[in-house]
Amino acid sequence: MLSIVILGTGTIAKHLAGAISKIKEVRLAQIVGRNQEHLQWFSNLAPIIADFSKIADADVYLIAVKDDAIVEVSDYLSNKKGIVAHVSGATPMDSLSMENRGVFYPLQSFTEGRPLDFKTIPFCIEANWEASAKTLKTLAGRLSDNIYDIDSQQRKKLHLAAMYVSNFSNYLYGVGENLCLEEGLSFDLLKPLILETAEKVQTMSPKEAQTGPARRGDMKTMQAHLELLNDEKQKEIYALFSEAIKKVYEEKL
Amino acid sequence: MLSIVILGTGTIAKHLAGAISKIKEVRLAQIVGRNQEHLQWFSNLAPIIADFSKIADADVYLIAVKDDAIVEVSDYLSNKKGIVAHVSGATPMDSLSMENRGVFYPLQSFTEGRPLDFKTIPFCIEANWEASAKTLKTLAGRLSDNIYDIDSQQRKKLHLAAMYVSNFSNYLYGVGENLCLEEGLSFDLLKPLILETAEKVQTMSPKEAQTGPARRGDMKTMQAHLELLNDEKQKEIYALFSEAIKKVYEEKL
Repeated sequence: MLSIVILGTGTIAKHLAGAISKIKEVRLAQIVGRNQEHLQWFSNLAPIIADFSKIADADVYLIAVKDDAIVEVSDYLSNKKGIVAHVSGATPMDSLSMENRGVFYPLQSFTEGRPLDFKTIPFCIEANWEASAKTLKTLAGRLSDNIYDIDSQQRKKLHLAAMYVSNFSNYLYGVGENLCLEEGLSFDLLKPLILETAEKVQTMSPKEAQTGPARRGDMKTMQAHLELLNDEKQKEIYALFSEAIKKVYEEKL
Repeated sequence: MLSIVILGTGTIAKHLAGAISKIKEVRLAQIVGRNQEHLQWFSNLAPIIADFSKIADADVYLIAVKDDAIVEVSDYLSNKKGIVAHVSGATPMDSLSMENRGVFYPLQSFTEGRPLDFKTIPFCIEANWEASAKTLKTLAGRLSDNIYDIDSQQRKKLHLAAMYVSNFSNYLYGVGENLCLEEGLSFDLLKPLILETAEKVQTMSPKEAQTGPARRGDMKTMQAHLELLNDEKQKEIYALFSEAIKKVYEEKL
């Protein structure tokens, strides 16, 4: 039976601990965190400790803390024999200094208190040792159906790609919400469209799925849209996207 | 029993005809289009005609043609007594010149051959006469649970908002796909994240849902991201969004 220690008490730590605690073949040996109050959330899932000098021996240590605290936390694990893996998209594996190191990166946006279907989450696995990669993949395979070998360079790019499709898209949703509010309309009006746009690319390439005036090269509608906008940032975004989309499809003609 | 004529044979006409033909209390009286070949698609749903001088009498005429053809098509309906309504987001109701005019705008992205749950589609209704608004709402209410009174100015803004949340988001999905391909990775890796990002705002405001380095003001990650990008357009988008997102949350601090 695989034993796991999780270091960290934030949102990802909570999601991982919740999911791992449900796997029969795995034992959640310990949750380690600085903050006693945050640790309480985990008290039904595993033993909790705030003293980093008392970390239990385990097969896998998952470091689920903020990126800039990963190295510091990993220092407490320098004498451990198990695999030390962080769960970060943006941090190279080699930020960890122990021989038996790896990465266990779930490519998803985790929200406090919002349940996720772990089975669909892509787990990006990397390890310094082949046997450790295998162990991390076994663990990931108990949680999800989507396991990938991803090296640090690829993961960095993926994390960047995630910015575009998630953070930036979400910002656009916010622009949409503001435009609704300007007219006293509910953001509910845009929700089915937002969902359909995301669902469409589950089976189609975004390039095929693209619609709208910019794709058609419909300058009249684009000009009318620009005139409707009051906010300079919204105007800038509109112009930039229109130009970018137009360019993609002009090249195709 | 309400009788409906649809003018147009494009994607929206197909979706509307398909959905309307399933309503028991409504009779799809005719589909009118210039192109015999395109009309064939509709032949199982209603009588089809290509001769615009032979449009049947009906309670409602839905003009589902390209924006710049709406006025021209509406000229064939100038002597009709039924409600003449277009289905366009970007076109003012008063582009139509008959007294009994209106708008029947389904706010959704329609894709050829891709089924949609009509029940969730917001229908934006406007009419010159109160009784006609009621009729259009009755029709919309047979198709969907989401009926809204939306005037031409509001609809114009909504249509613009739809650009941001749909066309521009889809463009960002394409950037994500390109970044994956640059590393020889499958776009599948980003799909669950895309879906979760869209699902999240079904119950949360985009402003609450925002995550990532720009929201945190994490300059180090943002700088590293910019250095990873080769494409100038991608760089420009990154910088613009980072700045815009940062600004939203700085104001909140």
